[in-house]
Amino acid sequence: MTDQPQVSEQPVDQEQALDGNATEKHLLILMPSGRRGMVEHRKSLLEAARGLGVEIESICGGRLTCGKCRVNVEEGSFPKHGILSGSDHLSPPSEEESLLLAHLHASGGRLSCSAYVTGDLLVSVPEESRAHKQVIRKSATQRTIEIAPAVRQVYVQVDEAQLGEHRGDWGRLQSALSAQWSLENLTIDLLALRRLQMALRQGKWAVTVTLWQDHEVIDVRPGYEEGVYGLAVDIGSTTVAGYLCDLRTGELLATESMMNPQVSFGEDLMSRVSFAMSRSDGLDKMHAAILDALNHLAANAARQAGIRARQIHEAVMVGNTTMIHIFLGINPEELGGAPFALANRDAMDIKARELGLHLHPGANVHILPAEAGHVGADNVGVLIAEEPYHQDENILIVDVGTNAEIDLGSRAAMFSASSPTGPAFEGGQISSGMRAAPGAIERVRIDPVSKIARFRVIGEDKWSDEWQIGAQAPVESQPGHLAAGICGSGIIEVIAEMYLAGIINSDGRILPDPLSERIIWDGRKGAYVLATAEQTTSGDPLLITQDDVRNIQLAKGALYAGVKLLMNRSGIQSVDKIILAGAFGSYIDPKYAMILGLVPDCSLEKIYAVGNAAGDGARIALLNRHKRQEAQEIAHWIRYVETAVDPDFQKEFVDAMYLPHRRDAYPHLVGILPERAAIPDQRGERRRRFVRDQ
Amino acid sequence: MTDQPQVSEQPVDQEQALDGNATEKHLLILMPSGRRGMVEHRKSLLEAARGLGVEIESICGGRLTCGKCRVNVEEGSFPKHGILSGSDHLSPPSEEESLLLAHLHASGGRLSCSAYVTGDLLVSVPEESRAHKQVIRKSATQRTIEIAPAVRQVYVQVDEAQLGEHRGDWGRLQSALSAQWSLENLTIDLLALRRLQMALRQGKWAVTVTLWQDHEVIDVRPGYEEGVYGLAVDIGSTTVAGYLCDLRTGELLATESMMNPQVSFGEDLMSRVSFAMSRSDGLDKMHAAILDALNHLAANAARQAGIRARQIHEAVMVGNTTMIHIFLGINPEELGGAPFALANRDAMDIKARELGLHLHPGANVHILPAEAGHVGADNVGVLIAEEPYHQDENILIVDVGTNAEIDLGSRAAMFSASSPTGPAFEGGQISSGMRAAPGAIERVRIDPVSKIARFRVIGEDKWSDEWQIGAQAPVESQPGHLAAGICGSGIIEVIAEMYLAGIINSDGRILPDPLSERIIWDGRKGAYVLATAEQTTSGDPLLITQDDVRNIQLAKGALYAGVKLLMNRSGIQSVDKIILAGAFGSYIDPKYAMILGLVPDCSLEKIYAVGNAAGDGARIALLNRHKRQEAQEIAHWIRYVETAVDPDFQKEFVDAMYLPHRRDAYPHLVGILPERAAIPDQRGERRRRFVRDQ
Repeated sequence: MTDQPQVSEQPVDQEQALDGNATEKHLLILMPSGRRGMVEHRKSLLEAARGLGVEIESICGGRLTCGKCRVNVEEGSFPKHGILSGSDHLSPPSEEESLLLAHLHASGGRLSCSAYVTGDLLVSVPEESRAHKQVIRKSATQRTIEIAPAVRQVYVQVDEAQLGEHRGDWGRLQSALSAQWSLENLTIDLLALRRLQMALRQGKWAVTVTLWQDHEVIDVRPGYEEGVYGLAVDIGSTTVAGYLCDLRTGELLATESMMNPQVSFGEDLMSRVSFAMSRSDGLDKMHAAILDALNHLAANAARQAGIRARQIHEAVMVGNTTMIHIFLGINPEELGGAPFALANRDAMDIKARELGLHLHPGANVHILPAEAGHVGADNVGVLIAEEPYHQDENILIVDVGTNAEIDLGSRAAMFSASSPTGPAFEGGQISSGMRAAPGAIERVRIDPVSKIARFRVIGEDKWSDEWQIGAQAPVESQPGHLAAGICGSGIIEVIAEMYLAGIINSDGRILPDPLSERIIWDGRKGAYVLATAEQTTSGDPLLITQDDVRNIQLAKGALYAGVKLLMNRSGIQSVDKIILAGAFGSYIDPKYAMILGLVPDCSLEKIYAVGNAAGDGARIALLNRHKRQEAQEIAHWIRYVETAVDPDFQKEFVDAMYLPHRRDAYPHLVGILPERAAIPDQRGERRRRFVRDQ
Repeated sequence: MTDQPQVSEQPVDQEQALDGNATEKHLLILMPSGRRGMVEHRKSLLEAARGLGVEIESICGGRLTCGKCRVNVEEGSFPKHGILSGSDHLSPPSEEESLLLAHLHASGGRLSCSAYVTGDLLVSVPEESRAHKQVIRKSATQRTIEIAPAVRQVYVQVDEAQLGEHRGDWGRLQSALSAQWSLENLTIDLLALRRLQMALRQGKWAVTVTLWQDHEVIDVRPGYEEGVYGLAVDIGSTTVAGYLCDLRTGELLATESMMNPQVSFGEDLMSRVSFAMSRSDGLDKMHAAILDALNHLAANAARQAGIRARQIHEAVMVGNTTMIHIFLGINPEELGGAPFALANRDAMDIKARELGLHLHPGANVHILPAEAGHVGADNVGVLIAEEPYHQDENILIVDVGTNAEIDLGSRAAMFSASSPTGPAFEGGQISSGMRAAPGAIERVRIDPVSKIARFRVIGEDKWSDEWQIGAQAPVESQPGHLAAGICGSGIIEVIAEMYLAGIINSDGRILPDPLSERIIWDGRKGAYVLATAEQTTSGDPLLITQDDVRNIQLAKGALYAGVKLLMNRSGIQSVDKIILAGAFGSYIDPKYAMILGLVPDCSLEKIYAVGNAAGDGARIALLNRHKRQEAQEIAHWIRYVETAVDPDFQKEFVDAMYLPHRRDAYPHLVGILPERAAIPDQRGERRRRFVRDQ
């Protein structure tokens, strides 16, 4: 495939032939790259720059239509290069070029396709004129994404239909695309074919052609009409997130997210699978619900960006395997039990209209590949966003949701696993748990002496110890929200702080403390009063119960056991870097994640929260088609470890329930963990010995 | 692409390795082909036959499921080959083979996939077991069509899903298709993917896979389930004809035709184009009408054949360019005026469901290519059915409808043209014209002395001079139908007979004959009484008017001028063979076609009526995918001559209006044409001289 036009029809050659200076050469220097070289007399700047390895954008292929190839001609004296005189070392602008530059309000520049080198020159190529643009993604490792989308546009002039010439309009368009853009073996979407004849005539035989993968014509518009857009979507079990991008510049134009309406058919994946199995219309209902949601999401994102959904020329989808099955209308039944067989593991390309998505009529949907029954395209998205397989350090990636996906390794080898953490980390199965919404406790600090907590709720900047409550208090000191419950990041912090304050020990038991009013007992079970009655919306104290602690221990045990299993399988003793992906990872404090033992020991500065890396991966695959190939290779190369049936997993799980207490396992927590935490309690040691002896 | 399975997993190799006779060879003779050769000890008959160039059918690839590879083992003494003892020179049948043979009621035979050669053998391969079956098509040249459809089925055993193995069901199916059938680089239709998992489990990991072009999986059925069907359709302006075939055997299961419902939007092509141009919903209405008709046609044909329309796995369509444009939902507007630009000339493959056709959900529709704006896929169908481009003789093919398509040439070169004959040949623009229906006069003889005609009507075997009319006549002598009008073949005959009887002269003028009551005059215009008042349903005499004669002259002039233009362009002086295609050609008597000068001079025995050759071409392309490639090549290779704007056409047209009268131009009509016809009348000669002098 050719990314760049073969501008073979430039008038250069002809003029050169007539010109006595044909063999003369001139020095051309291109900024900011600094590339330079000798170029032939009267070569166009566009071609000359290309010859020096600097690609300048051009949609119209030198037809003075698009104005994308604008450059600035620098003049004056340059220390390293001597004096390079500007405008008189270039052919003067033609009337057409001047008109177009004026139209573009860029009369200072020149269009490189129409400016021919006649002497030494220094030229600067502004960012917007560079082909192969890049966008920068902030992540654990900041990196750039080269803009090389699967959809692009070219402007082309087509031979007029003539009596006695029988190629047909599509045949003539193919000839023009071959001659002017070196595009061969093309097909045309039926819907584009239906519009072709009118577009050619309205455009007076000049059209803008939209191509998918330099292979299929998906649109033909009269004249010059620029604009290609793409949508990247992460279909999560709970949340659907969409990113609308300009495919030419890579710019993120709109971010849109919404609840997955399938939630009404079941909160977690297994209940969705059950819904599909238990009702004959179960799959259809969930399939229709997600399509409806995606159509709304696309329409909303388009509105936000000031375009129409019909201008979205491609979409890339990621999601866990169940979500992708349902999205494709495939019954997820087989994912509900061993051997967890996927219908299809590999990447797919399907027309949006075939799926019932209302994007551009010729738009394609690319779905990233999955790795295994429980590790889907969303994890592959995380991988291509973070590229651990290109790095020398051992990297652990944890994407926490109802299921946690875990990746471990480096360029040498990568391993992945899925672990059933359950909903506790998201506030589920916690007595006062709630979603991250105003009033949810998200930060907690406990005084180790008084055992009294201070906390912060979402929607209120002041910590609770600065609140003044009651009619007498000044209005500015009253909190905007009282505590309504506790969200995922809050539950992590409160349990870690309870551990640091000695309220619980390393096996998670709440310890009696007759001196503190904050530790209360109901029969044999203790509970910790996180917020007093007057600090809550309900007027009741907000408690962290023994069961809450146990549920977090189960969740973190499942996660950590998965990590440990991968470390055992890979032979990796310690990790150099930890990446927390997903919304959950963005809100928790890495220190508390480590105190709680969610992750293995690591320097705290080397723990990164990267947000929705799955969505970022979808966006990267949208902007760069080569990353799709990489995704496919990685999905086959990574070694998936099945946790569900691994006997070691059960062993590790039991061990992993304990909170970190061994200095040798968590050297980076020395000085943070309480001293006594270094002494394991009797039951813990017994259990460990039992497991070791087996 | 591989047409035949690589049955590499036969137990043969292993057994051979263990067998001391591995190097021993045996004589195998295959009947009826008579092929023979030495084959290795313990090779399967299936493989051994293939090695000798005899392909035996097999769907299951040696899994003892399909029973398609049955052969008969002949025993006894054969003069040429000595004594070949049968059954003891083959491995004995296994229990599975015996069971399947009994199930097939074929206990006498053997399944060649499971019978291993252990001695010299004579084997006969029955017709139904032969791969590459052929069907015979009767046409101008009787020829055979090799059955090599684009859709075929294979039976395959797939690895069961296992924990820890992550290829996914589609990946496992691909592996199985690669290993057992050498099929690589496959894709799967989304709708087939949706059914895949259930089919694999219902079939206990054995499925029948339906493939299109050995490239796309369009269906997966549990276990062994045989049956692939295809529909060939000729979308004519007036009539839509469909042919439902068994794609495995090539058998024609049902023929179904119906009126094109677009007739209500306009009788001829130009009025359809006008309808599309004059109303915003014109195209949509005609598009919907033809789809509705095609869906009815498919359903009716399927019912006739005892299958369901959903079992039609592929369709091939031909039609004139306007019909194909409308079928595809492309506005035919550009075909309404010069330069008659097609949207697309080349062949297309489109999913039936994308077009709204209710065939198999994964079915493909193949549309044959067109040649030029006025010569469409229907003419390409005629060409691949008749293959004039493979013959040494100069062949003229005339397909008469509202437009006539004309092809002329041989393997050296082919030329084509379209000529606007108008509807006269189909009874249109004729005062008593009617469609070919009961009561229509189809045969006419005129007594040259009395000028009285005898005729035959459709639906009545007796000629009109044997009719006894009136209450006194015996019932068995009364005609079943009186004359209601005259159809296409009748109008040709009556005008030719009028010419032979001297009622009209060679420039078509009705000559006064005061002695005959059959020639009547209304002012300056004459008319011929073909049927008397008592012979007609209306009770009025049935007349052939001077205008009727003129309209036939105009039509035949247009046709003949087109032929002449092609002869001039090609330098072909005389034709060796004439093929009359289309329904019209099937009913007219070639002699009268020549007397009237529809076609140039040719031996009467070398004029053939081949019926709906366009439909036959569609059927051939349906049964043999290689013919599609041939069609594409021919459509590009044939030279199209534009009649509409050729100044020579107008000259030829004027000349061609005359009825044949020069002996040198029609030597084959000597003895048939009236003597005086050899003397051109003055006006004709004048006109000819005038044209020559220009």
